[in-house]
Amino acid sequence: MNGNLREFTLEYHLTAAECNAQREISLPLMVQRLIDIATAHADACNIGYQRLIADGNSWVLSRITLEMKRYPAINENYSLTTWVESINRHFSERNVEIRNGQGEPIGYARLVWMAINIKSRRPADLSPIIPEIEISDRPCPIAKQSRLSLAGIPDITTIYQFKFSDIDFNRHVNSTRYVQFILDRWSVSFFDMRMVSRFEIAYMSEAHYNDVVDVRLKGDESNQDIEIVRDGTVCTRARMHFAPRSAVTP
Amino acid sequence: MNGNLREFTLEYHLTAAECNAQREISLPLMVQRLIDIATAHADACNIGYQRLIADGNSWVLSRITLEMKRYPAINENYSLTTWVESINRHFSERNVEIRNGQGEPIGYARLVWMAINIKSRRPADLSPIIPEIEISDRPCPIAKQSRLSLAGIPDITTIYQFKFSDIDFNRHVNSTRYVQFILDRWSVSFFDMRMVSRFEIAYMSEAHYNDVVDVRLKGDESNQDIEIVRDGTVCTRARMHFAPRSAVTP
Repeated sequence: MNGNLREFTLEYHLTAAECNAQREISLPLMVQRLIDIATAHADACNIGYQRLIADGNSWVLSRITLEMKRYPAINENYSLTTWVESINRHFSERNVEIRNGQGEPIGYARLVWMAINIKSRRPADLSPIIPEIEISDRPCPIAKQSRLSLAGIPDITTIYQFKFSDIDFNRHVNSTRYVQFILDRWSVSFFDMRMVSRFEIAYMSEAHYNDVVDVRLKGDESNQDIEIVRDGTVCTRARMHFAPRSAVTP
Repeated sequence: MNGNLREFTLEYHLTAAECNAQREISLPLMVQRLIDIATAHADACNIGYQRLIADGNSWVLSRITLEMKRYPAINENYSLTTWVESINRHFSERNVEIRNGQGEPIGYARLVWMAINIKSRRPADLSPIIPEIEISDRPCPIAKQSRLSLAGIPDITTIYQFKFSDIDFNRHVNSTRYVQFILDRWSVSFFDMRMVSRFEIAYMSEAHYNDVVDVRLKGDESNQDIEIVRDGTVCTRARMHFAPRSAVTP
């Protein structure tokens, strides 16, 4: 394959209409950008959805771990660079560096992708594409995802029913929407005081249109564990670490 | 000013993660793109937010009218071209042409922008910038916005409370979020059968975080009138025309 594709970069501009109340990129859009660049890089390397579907398989996003020193701000240019850290027959580990308009790193992400057979919905073997992947040893200076769990009784449980706009092109709940409705458990003023400095999410079981889920939260003003549960099955687990903005804004 | 800026074009690629359940651009993202290109064109002509804020004023989006023959689809390139049709001291009429990857027009939009004084929240006089605006006589072959109203008793009224992720950089409800939660009154299968062929929205009064609104609907499977009301004040009116997909898909 083309050695120039070992690392892959996309440039963006954050428009006003894309910003959240803190005049930054929203976390759901940041997550979408991570998925976008992973998809674009895989396509460019001919190991994207088109390649996998030829064997009846499809990529499935399993985990995202994101750490940000600060988020791209209104009218700011930013860029993402992605590379594959490792691949085995079960999953592929891909990293992303996020840089500000001056090209300085402001965050990193780790993504874990699996493949499933689209008929059986069972894990598929990635062995056939391993020879086509070029690994980069570019460092990703954030810890891998911890074991997510919500131990004990939740502090708060709310109920959410998935609507039309929550559904993605595969007819599952959009990966970014879990992020959005997790954040919506807190207020605008909460996020004026704090930013999400580390975000971890594991996609475990697919949810669909009209599904009703429990959103369970447990934690404090620094850390929160989140579990999204449908009929006793955990769909998604997440963990957020909040940093006070005074500590992170220069 | 620069005559090359009489018309202004931006190119886009629709990623999988940006698609709705019908594998097209979602209507809220389409609306965001209209706002993005209007903002970018005004900035390029030095009549953007930076210019208006010097006089204590700000642009405010008043109305959008959109007609689509079809929407950009998954992995498709598309482009938008915008121009100003007219400006007077009260408002500016701006149009947008939406083209597919082959450069063929697939839709048009009409946007009406006003300016307000950011302290008094009263309409501001656009006269100072009129000499700086170059008008284009490029045709926009869709009807101007009709007078929106919901006459009589609504068929359905639901309640919505604005959450963290609904709020924009100005601390108002994001213009695209009204579009999203209007669409969320219908099901995935409803939109499998129909597309929104014409969408009209008028932003009348700002809503804020935690506001609770009534969402009132009246109409049939072809036309719907929508009113979003907070404490008796109409925040937003909208009208949708649905076309059967069999009639529009080639």
